Amino acid sequence: MRIDIITVLPELLKSPFEASILKRAIDKGLVEVHLHQLRDYTSNKYKQVDDYQFGGGAGMVLMIEPIEKCINGLKAERQYDEVIYMTPDGETFNQRIANELSLKGNIIILCGHYKGVDQRVRDLFITKEISIGDYVLSGGELAAAVVSDAIIRLLPGVLNDETSALTDTFQDNLLAPPVYTRPADYNGYKVPEILTTGNFPKIEKWREEQALKRTKERRPDLLDQ
Amino acid sequence: MRIDIITVLPELLKSPFEASILKRAIDKGLVEVHLHQLRDYTSNKYKQVDDYQFGGGAGMVLMIEPIEKCINGLKAERQYDEVIYMTPDGETFNQRIANELSLKGNIIILCGHYKGVDQRVRDLFITKEISIGDYVLSGGELAAAVVSDAIIRLLPGVLNDETSALTDTFQDNLLAPPVYTRPADYNGYKVPEILTTGNFPKIEKWREEQALKRTKERRPDLLDQ
Repeated sequence: MRIDIITVLPELLKSPFEASILKRAIDKGLVEVHLHQLRDYTSNKYKQVDDYQFGGGAGMVLMIEPIEKCINGLKAERQYDEVIYMTPDGETFNQRIANELSLKGNIIILCGHYKGVDQRVRDLFITKEISIGDYVLSGGELAAAVVSDAIIRLLPGVLNDETSALTDTFQDNLLAPPVYTRPADYNGYKVPEILTTGNFPKIEKWREEQALKRTKERRPDLLDQ
Repeated sequence: MRIDIITVLPELLKSPFEASILKRAIDKGLVEVHLHQLRDYTSNKYKQVDDYQFGGGAGMVLMIEPIEKCINGLKAERQYDEVIYMTPDGETFNQRIANELSLKGNIIILCGHYKGVDQRVRDLFITKEISIGDYVLSGGELAAAVVSDAIIRLLPGVLNDETSALTDTFQDNLLAPPVYTRPADYNGYKVPEILTTGNFPKIEKWREEQALKRTKERRPDLLDQ
């Protein structure tokens, strides 16, 4: 898989891709992530990528031209399955979308910044608009990192133990049950007895009950899906 | 405001806080962000922070002891308004929670990693559990960065133009209207005429209509809130 991220702040995205699971996936050759500085695709001498919005109002808007140049340059080199724009009014990201995107070959992710991109960019070049949640960030960069992380950890071979992702919260529309580790007794606060019995069928049953209970209490909406 | 982030991967969080708006807010003294390496709070010589889960199963669990030490050490120095745990089964983060948190003085954010933290940490030390959305990440670090970004940009003085945050998507349960910038005509794709008229009351009305239309089409659920 290949992910191309277009941004005015590639430096913001540096450390997330140089640490932990994402770094390991890149080092293993399971995914390529390329960061593209949008300013490198301007034709004006000030490398200006944004301008005031028509009709007035606070906040700058990213211009069409450098974005078009960058996207078309990438498309000239290979085929892309999706050109994604990170925006709070996009489709709300969830584990289903993460699963779907993890099956793609090449994707472009465009990060908005300031007040967003010129609407014509969205009309002409974007195939999918994604929001990571109902809140506003100072740019699409962290959102792009979140989507990349959620996708990349699903790629075969990325997690050490492949069953680990399958037992995650949301994969079956249930929240995960509580987990415990040593010590069994911490200042009088004990691990539920069942977990130390070694009776695995019973433990499995307990976990299912706990997952269902937690989902009912915290996210009953998930059970209707 | 002061944000203390507890994590096994502080290096992952480096660049987001060294770029753009977050850096500017820190440089201006509007917010302090401190990253704490959880391994520095272990008492065993291998600096081990995680262990297998009781009852078996894939994925390691962060142990109580180093987390307790780190949180209690911080609490001994100052009062905290919230001790937040980033977890996919927490309350779903949104702009309302961002607004609320932006009014706090000091907060701690604990990042889960691997399979999460020992449930007793959540029972004993955590005052608020937050999820940034219905998907699973390889750790809570990016989620902590997202929450920090959403909060910090709301602090007075952080954005250049304070009206900018007030006109954002979600602040009034409406998606933002489309935005356009120069050129007015891009290969035949034109800016809506109304935006170039200079008739600001009419432009304002058009924007309200567009915001409502977009919300109805994309997120009718927001209108019921």
